[in-house]
Amino acid sequence: MAPVKLLGLPMSTCTARVLACLHEKGIDFELVPVNLPAGEHKQPPFLSKNPFGQIPALDDGDLTLFESRAITKYLATKRNDVGPDLLRLGDAKEAAFVNVWLEVEAHQYSPPISALVYQRVVLPVFGGTPDEKVIEANAEKLGKILDVYEERLSKSKYLAGDFYSLADLHHLPYTYYLTKTPEAKLIYSRPHVKAWWEDISSRPAFKKVAEGMVLGNA
Amino acid sequence: MAPVKLLGLPMSTCTARVLACLHEKGIDFELVPVNLPAGEHKQPPFLSKNPFGQIPALDDGDLTLFESRAITKYLATKRNDVGPDLLRLGDAKEAAFVNVWLEVEAHQYSPPISALVYQRVVLPVFGGTPDEKVIEANAEKLGKILDVYEERLSKSKYLAGDFYSLADLHHLPYTYYLTKTPEAKLIYSRPHVKAWWEDISSRPAFKKVAEGMVLGNA
Repeated sequence: MAPVKLLGLPMSTCTARVLACLHEKGIDFELVPVNLPAGEHKQPPFLSKNPFGQIPALDDGDLTLFESRAITKYLATKRNDVGPDLLRLGDAKEAAFVNVWLEVEAHQYSPPISALVYQRVVLPVFGGTPDEKVIEANAEKLGKILDVYEERLSKSKYLAGDFYSLADLHHLPYTYYLTKTPEAKLIYSRPHVKAWWEDISSRPAFKKVAEGMVLGNA
Repeated sequence: MAPVKLLGLPMSTCTARVLACLHEKGIDFELVPVNLPAGEHKQPPFLSKNPFGQIPALDDGDLTLFESRAITKYLATKRNDVGPDLLRLGDAKEAAFVNVWLEVEAHQYSPPISALVYQRVVLPVFGGTPDEKVIEANAEKLGKILDVYEERLSKSKYLAGDFYSLADLHHLPYTYYLTKTPEAKLIYSRPHVKAWWEDISSRPAFKKVAEGMVLGNA
């Protein structure tokens, strides 16, 4: 099979999400950098790959996909035969729990943590000053969500059950950047969340991805 | 099979999303109302069903799920044999496109439209006054997203292709409320978006759901 082409940047959280999946599955790929400062993602031909003008996009032969969380599902389904069983398609209940926690990442976890990472990591790169009120409000929101995670992870080793799944994987990029900021304490002050984070972030597949996640002082 | 139990309220957008799927699939269900004004969703036993304290939740025998978009995927997978083929699981490319547009709904469309519906429909119910600046900013965001939809829907009848899918269905509840506000023009001023909306909102399954979507002046 020809390698798939991932158009993106290794320090982008959404690109990193797909890279983590590619490495877990051992899928042959080529990373094609997109020149964001030059606005390459807002012009053709990139817009023909993702009309919303955001990285990453994936080319697999004549199939082009976008939205990182859809790309990982496609790759995990396509290569269900190799590597960890990220979607648990063989068990309707386990697959349903994976979907529940995929949605929790997207709708509960991602909004406050992406706001924190933006303030603490992204904004300073562009010369901006973090807004402490925005940080405080989102830290409080994320803390309440992590209280639920703490309870959940006291009962199962991973979010969807006692198995590593795509739901855990989707948390990696933003959480990695958060642990480089003062708000790392939100993770490390909760024993079960801390143990879960140390487990999933030390997987060899993600360690390779983290090497490219250099953004600001992170 | 015993009917599934859906805990929620018919006027809630997230409950309505699941109801639309239940009706499309002809799945036998019982709607169990949750007393939001009394805070029933923030107390046990509801919190044991969804620790984030939000409606809806689904009981299917001894399986309990939450997050509306995970529940619809579970139901559409479980009853892949009846009704419209909402996930296209038999075709890897079609299934991938369904996932792409499911993610577009979640991450591009939902944030601005939910903000608009909150301002125009929800807030007035609780005696609040809509913030015209918030409305203007979100109307502009949604308009740009709908420009992409207009282009997409000029090439295929539905979002993921020439077939109705869960990706279209997930758009129903918020768009329904939006069409009862002045921002309805965002939908009706774009010919292909308008035709798509008139098509998907006139499906008998959704018409049943819309009967219960009475909120404020909507």
